[in-house]
Amino acid sequence: MFTMSTLPSTDSDDSRYHHGHLREALLREGLRLLEEGGEAGFSLRELARRVGVSANAAYRHFASKEALLEALAAEGFRRFGTAQLAAATGAGHPLRGFLAAGRAYVDFARAQPALFRLMFGRFSAGRAEGEMSEAGETAYQGLRHAVAAALGKGVDDPVVEVAALHAWSLVHGLALLVLDGQLERRAGTAGVEARIDAVLRLAMAPWEAGTP
Amino acid sequence: MFTMSTLPSTDSDDSRYHHGHLREALLREGLRLLEEGGEAGFSLRELARRVGVSANAAYRHFASKEALLEALAAEGFRRFGTAQLAAATGAGHPLRGFLAAGRAYVDFARAQPALFRLMFGRFSAGRAEGEMSEAGETAYQGLRHAVAAALGKGVDDPVVEVAALHAWSLVHGLALLVLDGQLERRAGTAGVEARIDAVLRLAMAPWEAGTP
Repeated sequence: MFTMSTLPSTDSDDSRYHHGHLREALLREGLRLLEEGGEAGFSLRELARRVGVSANAAYRHFASKEALLEALAAEGFRRFGTAQLAAATGAGHPLRGFLAAGRAYVDFARAQPALFRLMFGRFSAGRAEGEMSEAGETAYQGLRHAVAAALGKGVDDPVVEVAALHAWSLVHGLALLVLDGQLERRAGTAGVEARIDAVLRLAMAPWEAGTP
Repeated sequence: MFTMSTLPSTDSDDSRYHHGHLREALLREGLRLLEEGGEAGFSLRELARRVGVSANAAYRHFASKEALLEALAAEGFRRFGTAQLAAATGAGHPLRGFLAAGRAYVDFARAQPALFRLMFGRFSAGRAEGEMSEAGETAYQGLRHAVAAALGKGVDDPVVEVAALHAWSLVHGLALLVLDGQLERRAGTAGVEARIDAVLRLAMAPWEAGTP
């Protein structure tokens, strides 16, 4: 296994990386660094040091810290979309799959809170552009298709858009309340895991009853 | 009407404020300043200048910018709780009242987005203390009582806590998606207002059906 820490920290040597591999290494290690210090503490120089290349070598792939954070958010949305899809299809039934995808949404936020906040901090109407906007949009279209399947409706049925926004609001709010420690505070003896499941099941009740 | 801008900006004169009135004036003007520049751009010195007192006079009421922000968050929670209660009781029926309170939650966030983010950024398990924690807790207990009334259950019924977390997650996520511009982006010809209402009505469906 390739270990970052065994690399010498020379000042300009990125010849060890094949074309494209350094970009991947920067993204991979960037995700780790982000969780350690959050967006505010993120530094492109520190990232370059960790990967064992010069700052200049890193700047050849990302013009600025901002560009790198956007690429991390885009990578986050791709992983997020993949996790959602795996949860939804792994359950073997559209409704159970939808519940599993909701749980995967919350779990993704808990596993990588800084990435989750970065993704949604940037994926807002005025700010999302290019790669990140595309990755975020793909994740949203995945949600719409999962909603359509769970409801047995066509993806362009008007109720699908409202139901998708409803489902998204619920898991988004739940994820943030969990990150803020509110669920822990209110869960009592039931425990956080059981409370998350109970809230998701309650939200699914009308879907199971054949509505909306 | 008392107008702040007519006050001379002297360096040490806070004699015009009766005891306690300066604190109120700082909070009132602080809420405005917060919306103009967000938490990051907030300055206690600028606030003192606007209210027409010296920075030292302001520091006699708030030991630091942090203390003032906490007081603003607490004031936010009190206003928030009042708005929720007014919406809930003004509708004349527990279920309609609950829907109105959900709408009031989202509208509060839209009217004062910086305050809303400040409140929930600080009202997390590890950080909330004193006055703010108390005001946030009061707002949450108001929610639990509204849920109990809407469901026709006792406030200590276990389903009330889960239903309260469900309702909170939904309106919290919806409010943040609206602030992030996501509803605008997805609302299409229906418009944002109609979409917010449609999502809230959909969330209420099981409550109207007598479940949970």
